[in-house]
Amino acid sequence: MTANEETLRIGVDIGGTKALGVRLGHQGEVLGELQLPTPDRTGEVVDVIRHLVESLAGPAESPSSIGVGVPALVDGAGVLRFSPHLPRLVGLGLESELRRIWPGAAVWSGNDATAAGWAEHAIGAGRGVDEMLMVTLGTGIGGGIVAGGRIREGARRFAGEFGHMVIDPHGPLCPCGNRGCWERYASGSGLGQLGREAAMAGRLPRVVELAGGDPEDVRGEHVTRAAGEGDPPAVEVMASFAWWLALGLANLATILDPDVVVLGGGLIDAGEVLMGPARRAFAELVEASEARAGLAILPAALGSRAGAVGAGLLAAGERGAG
Amino acid sequence: MTANEETLRIGVDIGGTKALGVRLGHQGEVLGELQLPTPDRTGEVVDVIRHLVESLAGPAESPSSIGVGVPALVDGAGVLRFSPHLPRLVGLGLESELRRIWPGAAVWSGNDATAAGWAEHAIGAGRGVDEMLMVTLGTGIGGGIVAGGRIREGARRFAGEFGHMVIDPHGPLCPCGNRGCWERYASGSGLGQLGREAAMAGRLPRVVELAGGDPEDVRGEHVTRAAGEGDPPAVEVMASFAWWLALGLANLATILDPDVVVLGGGLIDAGEVLMGPARRAFAELVEASEARAGLAILPAALGSRAGAVGAGLLAAGERGAG
Repeated sequence: MTANEETLRIGVDIGGTKALGVRLGHQGEVLGELQLPTPDRTGEVVDVIRHLVESLAGPAESPSSIGVGVPALVDGAGVLRFSPHLPRLVGLGLESELRRIWPGAAVWSGNDATAAGWAEHAIGAGRGVDEMLMVTLGTGIGGGIVAGGRIREGARRFAGEFGHMVIDPHGPLCPCGNRGCWERYASGSGLGQLGREAAMAGRLPRVVELAGGDPEDVRGEHVTRAAGEGDPPAVEVMASFAWWLALGLANLATILDPDVVVLGGGLIDAGEVLMGPARRAFAELVEASEARAGLAILPAALGSRAGAVGAGLLAAGERGAG
Repeated sequence: MTANEETLRIGVDIGGTKALGVRLGHQGEVLGELQLPTPDRTGEVVDVIRHLVESLAGPAESPSSIGVGVPALVDGAGVLRFSPHLPRLVGLGLESELRRIWPGAAVWSGNDATAAGWAEHAIGAGRGVDEMLMVTLGTGIGGGIVAGGRIREGARRFAGEFGHMVIDPHGPLCPCGNRGCWERYASGSGLGQLGREAAMAGRLPRVVELAGGDPEDVRGEHVTRAAGEGDPPAVEVMASFAWWLALGLANLATILDPDVVVLGGGLIDAGEVLMGPARRAFAELVEASEARAGLAILPAALGSRAGAVGAGLLAAGERGAG
């Protein structure tokens, strides 16, 4: 390798619909990025990763490190084991594929929210915080754990599946087979459900307008938008939603005692209309609240790039010194 | 100090009703032990610790290390901050008291279940397992986390409060102020409640007999005893109880991905009549069960001494190399 080649650090985030590649500088800064649709066929996912890398590389450059985050459980051998959002990828030996294509590169593959958590810890909202949780609020809920300044992935690298914590065994059925998983309530799907219920009861005229007129078409993003405009009933639905969010956050704080919880994913675009009620409900719900002064719930700093950036940092070996 | 003094390693476990002191050998083996009632007055707790140490010491011996576990949240400065079971001790500067009495000794003070978890990891059922959870099933539920081979206490040393994970926000009120905490269901109190409900419905004649004839007097231990005898309706209540236990264990596994979960506390005396149904319900409840082969749910090996032994080991500095 030439000196040039040593600096090509790539991070990739394969989402349910989009695949994002970033080229990172030595401080984790994004030097270049490319987004493409996630292909439908399993084999093509590896082709897309290759295409992202080649597009971000200069002439004759080969990656010194490449990290790939996926919305899945990825085991210690880098094989996708469980993925409700990308079931067609289950069984893919992602890490061996990466090693086959780029034998000289340092490789990381793993859960996208874990990667996002590491990025927020390394250079984002949880920078320098040794006890930190990442919670990504999208269609579902993902999670990442930083403890003692290092990413914690558990025995088989399956840790951080916060969305499937059961918070009501009599609650709605989850595709995972259980009832009342946290992500039935506190994800974009959960907000959409709360919104539709309020809309059917005639309580959300502005939200229904944004959804095109039919209460059944209300989705989380319509509630978020109306609440952002200050529409009082939408703000009220957002506060109910924030309570469910806070319930799970309080559980996680009770179990793991973090200093900072970073919230990521599309839902945090709602801003204070979500963060304010969530912080207040959290303070009411968490055990020994008065003794937890300093615990901060913060919006993610790296936005939709966090997963790709974190995967790139983890591949480059920046897992913390602890 | 003489060579003799260097070998006096003491661990103490202050319970709601009993205080246990142990003297440990170099392998963590119990060389001596003494149990006394936990005194009613705060100041006397320190006197009892002193008495335990002096009784376990030889002539002119002073402890080289002393660890004290309490059913409480103990902060980084060794001050008791929150304790539903020993509210009179809140505010006690336990660690500074220990340092005042034995200025030359290495000191640890902290949560009793955390200590028990470390003991089970170091020399018990989870020996050598780097990703391990301890769950103590008593009047309430306590917990300890070992990750990366080290005890994880979180930002303020409050981690592991598994019992106050909310699993049903419409559930019964908990003394902590929330509804539906896991320990309302899966502790000795929870088993007693399940037992009383079944007894009032006339379904537990043998259990009611063991309780002295009044269904309202049924407690968890009566159900455990009858189930141990093979009484079919008691076995059935135990299986319902095991489902609630497994629900919380599945949540913890989803969040932390351990290799081993060690169950401690008085309830595990029930043996297979509890462990069997709990393991089966866990396999049904945990996400991606088929990919978690090898995850073991084991009874604690150190019994009621685990807290004292672990506190002693932590004081002696055996927190693991990782």
